[in-house]
Amino acid sequence: MTILPPSDQDLYSTMRELKWSSTEKAIARRCFDRALQQELDAAIQSTKQKAAKIKQASELWELERHLTHLRKKLDDQYEYKYSTLILLFADLVREGKLDPEDLRGLSRDKFRHIRRHAEQSAA
Amino acid sequence: MTILPPSDQDLYSTMRELKWSSTEKAIARRCFDRALQQELDAAIQSTKQKAAKIKQASELWELERHLTHLRKKLDDQYEYKYSTLILLFADLVREGKLDPEDLRGLSRDKFRHIRRHAEQSAA
Repeated sequence: MTILPPSDQDLYSTMRELKWSSTEKAIARRCFDRALQQELDAAIQSTKQKAAKIKQASELWELERHLTHLRKKLDDQYEYKYSTLILLFADLVREGKLDPEDLRGLSRDKFRHIRRHAEQSAA
Repeated sequence: MTILPPSDQDLYSTMRELKWSSTEKAIARRCFDRALQQELDAAIQSTKQKAAKIKQASELWELERHLTHLRKKLDDQYEYKYSTLILLFADLVREGKLDPEDLRGLSRDKFRHIRRHAEQSAA
């Protein structure tokens, strides 16, 4: 989750006040689930590759640390809360993990917040 | 490390008082290193097998727990202290991870303690 500088506190307040229609909730859920599943699939592949290359014991504990880091990162990032979904989607768009096209159907203001935050964070 | 019942406290005291010659230390070190290396090789193989079979995310975190458990177990069991080596070797003999033949060269009393404790623990 990106930590907002003081100047973005307004965005944070705005996000908390946004209303989500049932259609928007369905779109958000689909985007969230798909992005998380892609991360997990990538994690499975990277873990299989790392494990297959292990030659010495120290690499076992490197793999353990890798998995712990991954689990904490995903637990931290993928929290399904409407008050912070805009920031999560902005992060995912910026990281190329979510196609803005998939967000079609969200209200204009939500879409604008996501685009703006994705561009701000990338700058 | 096996926890001793009160009746075995004498063995524990005896172990602490045993003197190890340089030849015995070399034998002990070789047995210790070899048994640990075998455990680590087995851990590498089992980890590769588990990782290769992963199909869903929950199995990633099972692998993480497996590695954490393994690391703690090995850290706990394989402590190179002359005061407790007798118990470690007894455990390894009982578990079939150390051939008593490899201990040849240790003093009679050490060998007897190891055999006795291995048999007691198995009973």
